[in-house]
Amino acid sequence: DEKTDSEVAYGHRGMTLEEDLNVTNRYYIETDQAVIYKKPTPIQIVHVDYPKRSAAKITEAYFRRASTTDYNGIYKGKYIDFEAKETTHAHYIPLKNFHAHQVEHMKRIKRHGGIGFIIVKFTQSSETFLLDADFLAVYWDASLTGGRKSIPKQLFQEHGHLIPQNYLPRIDYLRVVKEVYF
Amino acid sequence: DEKTDSEVAYGHRGMTLEEDLNVTNRYYIETDQAVIYKKPTPIQIVHVDYPKRSAAKITEAYFRRASTTDYNGIYKGKYIDFEAKETTHAHYIPLKNFHAHQVEHMKRIKRHGGIGFIIVKFTQSSETFLLDADFLAVYWDASLTGGRKSIPKQLFQEHGHLIPQNYLPRIDYLRVVKEVYF
Ligand SMILES: [Mg+2]
Ligand SMILES: [Mg+2]
Repeated sequence: DEKTDSEVAYGHRGMTLEEDLNVTNRYYIETDQAVIYKKPTPIQIVHVDYPKRSAAKITEAYFRRASTTDYNGIYKGKYIDFEAKETTHAHYIPLKNFHAHQVEHMKRIKRHGGIGFIIVKFTQSSETFLLDADFLAVYWDASLTGGRKSIPKQLFQEHGHLIPQNYLPRIDYLRVVKEVYF
Repeated sequence: DEKTDSEVAYGHRGMTLEEDLNVTNRYYIETDQAVIYKKPTPIQIVHVDYPKRSAAKITEAYFRRASTTDYNGIYKGKYIDFEAKETTHAHYIPLKNFHAHQVEHMKRIKRHGGIGFIIVKFTQSSETFLLDADFLAVYWDASLTGGRKSIPKQLFQEHGHLIPQNYLPRIDYLRVVKEVYF
């Protein structure tokens, strides 16, 4: 079952959603369509060595939980904010993939006039959806008072938007944003 | 020369511009005026230990240069983007406090309809100014073709805006943004 180089490239096997989005965002910047970046992973730095004649070396640090979503930027004059997640479950994504700070952050963004959404890849089917952050907020809040602890794929199919996948841009989410929010 | 607690707090001696901005941004979020954060410092992680029963520990990592500015977010429905710097020079800030990627980033932001500026603190006088990113771009580009390698304080006084400093918010830059851009 050998693949040619171009088949492998086109299908970009093994690429995570994050890698695909990084390539996509770089493409949007290079073609001057939008300026959207993934924020760096927040790190708590405990110890740094400063060796002579070479770069400072961090020798003890820990991962911190982000207080916001991972991606933000500007598109057609509007503030854009989103979180991206993969799920291996065929029919739902567990809400524990998100955390309270992120949901609060997205509520704030929408209240202040920004565009907020989640991008979720169902890895079994390789389908990637965009879903407005309001739906995440509704499911999140319901889960705190006994509601289900996941968002069904059916919600993405009915109220979300399947994102076209190409060679470049790989995950063309701005095409969806343009249709849905403009 | 003892100070009472409230004098120390009010003057917040020893606070860096970054610390003051973090407190200010937290205040803006808590009072629901804006949603603006400093991005985490970008780190290149080389090695992580995963000890049993305790948190993952990064044991080798290096600082990376950011491709964007440090701060962004949303205010009154508009995308906001800025870089903040301190200078110990009384009459100018050297352009080497910024780097090419940041200047390019701010040009892009303005082209896409965002609000972009720099916040510069002259530590000798404790004055902090907001200056539109267009001025940085003009000085930056001129420096590449033989122009001066710094921005004079006089430019901040003539074309920038002195930011009011209070107990809270400490560096009330949104008051200036509201006047200048809205
Ligand atoms: Mg994340
Ligand atoms: Mg910086």
